[in-house]
Amino acid sequence: MPNIDTFMRATIDEARAGLAEGGIPIGSVLVHDGRIIGRGHNRRVQQGSAILHGEMDALENAGRQPASVYASSTLYTTLSPCAMCTGAILLYGIPRVVIGENRTFMGEEALLRERGVEVEVLQDPECIELMRSFIAANPELWNEDIGKEQH
Amino acid sequence: MPNIDTFMRATIDEARAGLAEGGIPIGSVLVHDGRIIGRGHNRRVQQGSAILHGEMDALENAGRQPASVYASSTLYTTLSPCAMCTGAILLYGIPRVVIGENRTFMGEEALLRERGVEVEVLQDPECIELMRSFIAANPELWNEDIGKEQH
Repeated sequence: MPNIDTFMRATIDEARAGLAEGGIPIGSVLVHDGRIIGRGHNRRVQQGSAILHGEMDALENAGRQPASVYASSTLYTTLSPCAMCTGAILLYGIPRVVIGENRTFMGEEALLRERGVEVEVLQDPECIELMRSFIAANPELWNEDIGKEQH
Repeated sequence: MPNIDTFMRATIDEARAGLAEGGIPIGSVLVHDGRIIGRGHNRRVQQGSAILHGEMDALENAGRQPASVYASSTLYTTLSPCAMCTGAILLYGIPRVVIGENRTFMGEEALLRERGVEVEVLQDPECIELMRSFIAANPELWNEDIGKEQH
């Protein structure tokens, strides 16, 4: 079992909390000055939401922050961020993103890097397994979440 | 079949509703099959929200939709979409965006076009005046909304 840091542990705990609620198991936390200032998970199922991906939920739960806070924060997420969450990271100028895995879904990491964001991908086995089982059991829900046509 | 002006009128009405609530005057509507299926406005002030820009609010109010609906929808917005709202448009594969104006803020229109989204900018005088007066009176709130450092 790899040694994952406290913040990725909290991020995975968020994903598991979402799964326990019957939701899509993706979690995220926003860290500033060594402290979690926002945490969240995907709420598509729980709140019928089209915009509350894990990262968006963490940003929303962090509340209104000055630009200087975002500019010195790190966003953790269990899964490679989609275009929407990538756009939110760019809007707020968050300089660093730590990603649990990008094996089950490759988000807009290239765009993040192109815009100067530091991107670290852990390929954490627990994150991969969480999504792999979820997608296998719920392919339609997963496709809906990433805007893909149903098969 | 209602013409384009009907939808931009509804979009501006949303912006004005936001202003009347003490909020940032940016509105948006999502149109599918000649009908508005979601409408909204910026709710940063009203709900203390970091993610409810006008476009995000319209998407959220449209509820969970299948990919085929987004793929044949048009998003109207009074102002050029920021990186976050642009990302949401790309996530859901919305093929067309009608923008009230980009004089007071230039969003990620180049990225939208690069990804094949049809972008139409009206440079509507009413949209420009709404934002111009608002920004002049509330520069700090506006900078917060677009992730910019305060002066």
